[in-house]
Amino acid sequence: MYLSFMIKVILLGSGNVAVHLAKAFVKNKNIDFIQRFGRSNSNVNFFDKTIPVIHKISELKPADVYLIAIFDDAISDFSKQLKFNQGLVVHTSGNKSLNTLQCNANKGVFYPLQTFSKEQKVDFKKIPIAFETEQENDFILLEKLAKLLSNETYNIDTEQRKKLHIAAVFANNFTNQMYKIAKDICEEHYFSFDILKPLIQETANKLLTLSPEKSQTGPAKRSDEKVIENHLQQLSKNQKEIYKLLTKSIIDTHK
Amino acid sequence: MYLSFMIKVILLGSGNVAVHLAKAFVKNKNIDFIQRFGRSNSNVNFFDKTIPVIHKISELKPADVYLIAIFDDAISDFSKQLKFNQGLVVHTSGNKSLNTLQCNANKGVFYPLQTFSKEQKVDFKKIPIAFETEQENDFILLEKLAKLLSNETYNIDTEQRKKLHIAAVFANNFTNQMYKIAKDICEEHYFSFDILKPLIQETANKLLTLSPEKSQTGPAKRSDEKVIENHLQQLSKNQKEIYKLLTKSIIDTHK
Repeated sequence: MYLSFMIKVILLGSGNVAVHLAKAFVKNKNIDFIQRFGRSNSNVNFFDKTIPVIHKISELKPADVYLIAIFDDAISDFSKQLKFNQGLVVHTSGNKSLNTLQCNANKGVFYPLQTFSKEQKVDFKKIPIAFETEQENDFILLEKLAKLLSNETYNIDTEQRKKLHIAAVFANNFTNQMYKIAKDICEEHYFSFDILKPLIQETANKLLTLSPEKSQTGPAKRSDEKVIENHLQQLSKNQKEIYKLLTKSIIDTHK
Repeated sequence: MYLSFMIKVILLGSGNVAVHLAKAFVKNKNIDFIQRFGRSNSNVNFFDKTIPVIHKISELKPADVYLIAIFDDAISDFSKQLKFNQGLVVHTSGNKSLNTLQCNANKGVFYPLQTFSKEQKVDFKKIPIAFETEQENDFILLEKLAKLLSNETYNIDTEQRKKLHIAAVFANNFTNQMYKIAKDICEEHYFSFDILKPLIQETANKLLTLSPEKSQTGPAKRSDEKVIENHLQQLSKNQKEIYKLLTKSIIDTHK
């Protein structure tokens, strides 16, 4: 019924995810962004000044969707304060089950899978959104909200979302740490990390047309013991440990 | 002196690096690509038909630069067959010293730092070339050749190049293995690896404006023991070992 109208949303939070969701809501003509709740004034300069900000739960207005974008461990306690019965309350965490929410209203999850930094611009249309609802009749609403924001929406359940979050740790956090170690090696030997940036871009780009198995190259892929041994001798203790384990992992994949 | 003329090059090899170097040479008006030596006919369809191919060392013509693009371990023995004294002989390996070359002519290294697959198109202009010469008067020639092919040329010595090669293993091979593990986790739980691709692209893109330290996020960065413990319980033995070690590495970086 309400789907032919604008979706009324309220955002609860002030962190990186809230900053980027707010930007996407403000720009969208089919979303009526009626309030943002922030406990403090943190990050206030990253939010559009036209959004009404409230600091008390009692000031919340009726809305179709309430999005909680706060620290994972705070979601449960925070949601207990939401005593109303109408609308749909969702959290935005990759790692928490739907039942982490302890509110009276219907529950859901709305997880935008991206690495958000406040300063970095993102194109929300390209950010996959994994969503889930407890009640079937909320599904259409949350799917509509997801599709208004992004071209890539996925209805996956809590268990799958938890695995997705772990996969994202490998694809993002651990990948980023590989960059960090590569940068350390460049700097320890007085040449610029910039030399590696085209290779890093190409490594990510290849994935759009080839699987990671198919695009793998290098000494571990070839089981080239001589080069591997030679590399190990040149590394620090911590670097060596990582080099060994990941080389073994590549060899196991390709044997 | 010869620098106002075209540079005469001969390519020796038939592998991925040779395929892409050949494409770049053929396109370049300032490069006179006079011969390619290939022991066998392998990959012959990946090379432009207009390039004269020879199979015997004795048929090599005089040239300014002879580029050896063959397996690392074959370079030394192969180069012993090059008995001529004129011109500059270079290998294209990231991991071998200049003195791996055992020829009579002057020596150098010409290392294009990229992950080459035969099927994948590359823009050679964006591929960093690390080069090195034994004789100072060859430097201008090899730098000129590098600059004809690429906008990013780096004069680095053998020791630095070896470290660069190791850094590239982290930035490319190990990163790619992170993608592979992420893909495994998706497939084990029946959702598409495609969900992670925008995150992977953004992880690489962020690097163009932020250092890997600055762009790091996630449970290890926050030392979030609860999430880390929860993730570990959901992983297979091999995945768990990698998760633990890389989490420790991120915590050490950010403590």
